[in-house]
Amino acid sequence: MGIEIERKYLVTGDDWRTAAHAVIPMAQGYLNDTASLDSGAQKASVRVRIQGGQAFLNMKSREIGHTRQEFDYPIPVEDARALLALCVGGLIDKRRHLVEHDGLLWEVDEFLGENAGLVVAEVELEHADQAITLPGWAGAEVTDQVRYYNLALAAHPFSRWSSAERG
Amino acid sequence: MGIEIERKYLVTGDDWRTAAHAVIPMAQGYLNDTASLDSGAQKASVRVRIQGGQAFLNMKSREIGHTRQEFDYPIPVEDARALLALCVGGLIDKRRHLVEHDGLLWEVDEFLGENAGLVVAEVELEHADQAITLPGWAGAEVTDQVRYYNLALAAHPFSRWSSAERG
Repeated sequence: MGIEIERKYLVTGDDWRTAAHAVIPMAQGYLNDTASLDSGAQKASVRVRIQGGQAFLNMKSREIGHTRQEFDYPIPVEDARALLALCVGGLIDKRRHLVEHDGLLWEVDEFLGENAGLVVAEVELEHADQAITLPGWAGAEVTDQVRYYNLALAAHPFSRWSSAERG
Repeated sequence: MGIEIERKYLVTGDDWRTAAHAVIPMAQGYLNDTASLDSGAQKASVRVRIQGGQAFLNMKSREIGHTRQEFDYPIPVEDARALLALCVGGLIDKRRHLVEHDGLLWEVDEFLGENAGLVVAEVELEHADQAITLPGWAGAEVTDQVRYYNLALAAHPFSRWSSAERG
């Protein structure tokens, strides 16, 4: 079990592409019903993820914001494929680009499929009030905006957002 | 991943107690919302279980009846305790008694807490049409009766059943 402290930003422009030192294809889905999570009828998301040649089962407590309990377990890729078929809501396809900036590792997620057009960057911190230097391509912070959660993007993808939701 | 084929029976009398060669205390809960599973909004249950000194995360597809896809992963007991706190619906406490009969291993589950008074026995088979010799203490078969699923017992425990539900 870990406590996850992370901040999430929209990404502007393409300068991050040349700075990336690795790209990891990812497919993921959720075994939970999103509506139940929203309503508080469930307390944790249950995610299945295949990334590169590995697969993981991940649980996160549903507290909104920077700090959540997180549990992550490696599972066989074959199991993950079968579990993805048991997921509800849509599946998420994305490419994760790893970018170092000012001593921190940023994960720039370029979404594909029904979420194409959306690019967000996350950085994991050691403590909640840690000062960070934002890269030039980091735009508005969206850490606390639920619609940018992968769980929400699976159920209500970016291609179906209203202009108000796109901000 | 495994395919699970099992049959479940009510237990009558106490003769199974002297035949048991092991007793395992179990505590378990579910990260899913039961109502979502019933409505089909979710396709798999996600169970956290501590048994003896070990803990497991378990997923089962929700097809009713004898045959289900099952995934089972060991996790640290400390994680399982934190995950039990994220479960929804009630927690299940029971003692599992292991009983050999006619070459097959029977698991006799003696429920405690809000399900006290309920005793059911399960036997796992190699194929769905396998002939079995029932022990004398095996009563009515309840394999397909959803209210006897542990998931259902967590949300709607035996102590709250109507006389019609108790049959």
